[in-house]
Amino acid sequence: MDIKILNFTMDKVYRDSLKLHKKFHGKLEVKSKVPIKNKKDLSLAYTPGVAEVCRAIAKDKNLAKEYTIKKNTVAVVSDGSAILGLGNLGPEAALPVMEGKAILFKEFAGVDAFPICLDTQDTEEIIKAVKYLAPVFGGINLEDISAPRCFVIEARLKKELSIPVMHDDQHGTAVVVLAAMINALKLKKLSKARAKVVISGAGAAGTAVAKMLIRYGFKNVFVCDSKGLIYIGRKDLNQPKTELARLTGITANGGITLKDVLKNADVFIGVSGPNIIGRAEVKTMNSRPVILALANPTPEIMPEEALAGGAYIVATGRSDFPNQINNVLAFPGIFRGALDNHATQITDQMLVKAAENLAKYVKNLTPENILPNPLDKGVVKVVAGAIR
Amino acid sequence: MDIKILNFTMDKVYRDSLKLHKKFHGKLEVKSKVPIKNKKDLSLAYTPGVAEVCRAIAKDKNLAKEYTIKKNTVAVVSDGSAILGLGNLGPEAALPVMEGKAILFKEFAGVDAFPICLDTQDTEEIIKAVKYLAPVFGGINLEDISAPRCFVIEARLKKELSIPVMHDDQHGTAVVVLAAMINALKLKKLSKARAKVVISGAGAAGTAVAKMLIRYGFKNVFVCDSKGLIYIGRKDLNQPKTELARLTGITANGGITLKDVLKNADVFIGVSGPNIIGRAEVKTMNSRPVILALANPTPEIMPEEALAGGAYIVATGRSDFPNQINNVLAFPGIFRGALDNHATQITDQMLVKAAENLAKYVKNLTPENILPNPLDKGVVKVVAGAIR
Repeated sequence: MDIKILNFTMDKVYRDSLKLHKKFHGKLEVKSKVPIKNKKDLSLAYTPGVAEVCRAIAKDKNLAKEYTIKKNTVAVVSDGSAILGLGNLGPEAALPVMEGKAILFKEFAGVDAFPICLDTQDTEEIIKAVKYLAPVFGGINLEDISAPRCFVIEARLKKELSIPVMHDDQHGTAVVVLAAMINALKLKKLSKARAKVVISGAGAAGTAVAKMLIRYGFKNVFVCDSKGLIYIGRKDLNQPKTELARLTGITANGGITLKDVLKNADVFIGVSGPNIIGRAEVKTMNSRPVILALANPTPEIMPEEALAGGAYIVATGRSDFPNQINNVLAFPGIFRGALDNHATQITDQMLVKAAENLAKYVKNLTPENILPNPLDKGVVKVVAGAIR
Repeated sequence: MDIKILNFTMDKVYRDSLKLHKKFHGKLEVKSKVPIKNKKDLSLAYTPGVAEVCRAIAKDKNLAKEYTIKKNTVAVVSDGSAILGLGNLGPEAALPVMEGKAILFKEFAGVDAFPICLDTQDTEEIIKAVKYLAPVFGGINLEDISAPRCFVIEARLKKELSIPVMHDDQHGTAVVVLAAMINALKLKKLSKARAKVVISGAGAAGTAVAKMLIRYGFKNVFVCDSKGLIYIGRKDLNQPKTELARLTGITANGGITLKDVLKNADVFIGVSGPNIIGRAEVKTMNSRPVILALANPTPEIMPEEALAGGAYIVATGRSDFPNQINNVLAFPGIFRGALDNHATQITDQMLVKAAENLAKYVKNLTPENILPNPLDKGVVKVVAGAIR
């Protein structure tokens, strides 16, 4: 496929997506689960009957999980500060993505999810707003909130709320990447202790992926941000990146670029932005490298470029190429499991187990098939099974 | 119907309502409006296609009304401080009511509505939280927020947001009560200038009803709170009640009770609490009075008591008696009209017109039929027609 054909295809996807959104005026609707056809229905679902339900919950708040939508409902919360790979476009522009997540929650896991796009990008105000909203929800899925604020927001909400909170850009991505890595290294017959892994991007996803891989036993993880390699002692690092440098244990004398680090690497994981490497860089990696180019909508390198550079396994975040590394493999099952098992926290151990279950679920493992199909309805069960 | 039978019936309604809520775990669900069955569907509803929709909205925020659920979605917002007639039970206990409103919005007007129960009762924090939430919604229905905070919250949000905001306990109630009054006075052949109207309750509903009636031309409106008649110069009045006293123009020397004012009244409007008057008080009113006893779930006086006292027309807020004065006659149509006509404000003029349309819609006007049936699908159209 050459670039010209590709652009034409993307143009068509974009045009068709605009058409779809215009036709339906958004992608989700709210519907009644109970009959409201006659006065008796009204008197049970609404006044006077509902008064008794209110009184019961007032006596014991936990009954909200039995008598209300709290049992099965998750908020998909964003401030629009890091929408896909597009940047800070604000809360209105975030809504189509959050609606999309909400319908995937329902389609794949039967979870009712509602988009909340907040008109503030202040860390403390976001924390307060989510806490104020919490009574209605059984879980909070944070989404497309930029680093480093996302780390503080997630940590504080996990601590201060008694319902599960997960920033999907971090942990959903990390789960699916770890699953992909388990299967990719299996195909390459390479150990996690020996593999040299280079991550491009030290935002929410890059940080969470690096931490997850290191926690899982990867010994050679290099993370680059837009200024190059992150190493112990680099002067311009904020607190989360300083912590990340410590975790990777990388020391250097400065001035090391992504291109430098890529030499002799076995794996490239892109969670940064469009078209930042080409086939020339892939050629400098160890032979038959693994390329996970996850920037959306345009990956760090297009699959045909990566393959032309000698890549053995290529994955992207997109639905229209093989090996889709998409959070949809993780988040529906994670929250399904959390809601069903009354989990008050989603722990690192649960997430690792979810990744292992995902990897194991692939029956016909090939370089073009390292992850389950996101449309496979069995995925949610194996992921949910890990969250207990 | 005697009290014993009535209590038995209420017990059954309460038991059945609890059962219904337990069976369905809440009353609403979120569903996709678009297909997501294959990779092509995913690429249009989600990545990569959705990126183009985000970019379009980032360029022009108004497109959110075309491409997202904002076009047809209303937030039903409460802090749980004044749930039905039950008092301050908190946000979790408010959820069954807000879910109920949400499904009525959909059933009667095709409006998608989602319950937001806020875990704060601080006026400024509620205002901020609702403003933060606003990007997702095409309108804000405030609900069951206690007076006098509700007045400040509504006024500020109306001023500071560019989408329609309405506190339903105030204006939804006022619209339906005005409609009932228009028809009740027609049956009684009594003019609004001559009718003596006594309102019990000076909270959200009582204040809005009084203001609406006075604006419409009623000349003798007396409002009582729990301490008795509200009059110009009463020492213990807060700001909204001081303003209300000024509007009624009532002067007095103090110590005047609800019972005192009821003497020779033509109309009693109860928006206060259960069982505060009996047949004895009704007998002191002018002959064949109008009794609108709207406290939920237990009215100020039960219909059979009021009729025994000589009442000509009796209405309650309940689905299980004739003449249901329920906001469901108003709020679905008001927001349907506001969304369809891109109204940025819901004005007093629109609300008066809505009440007139509602009154006119009753074809077979009798003392047991002064308002349309809430289940009549034509109601929403005549109300929506007023909001432009």
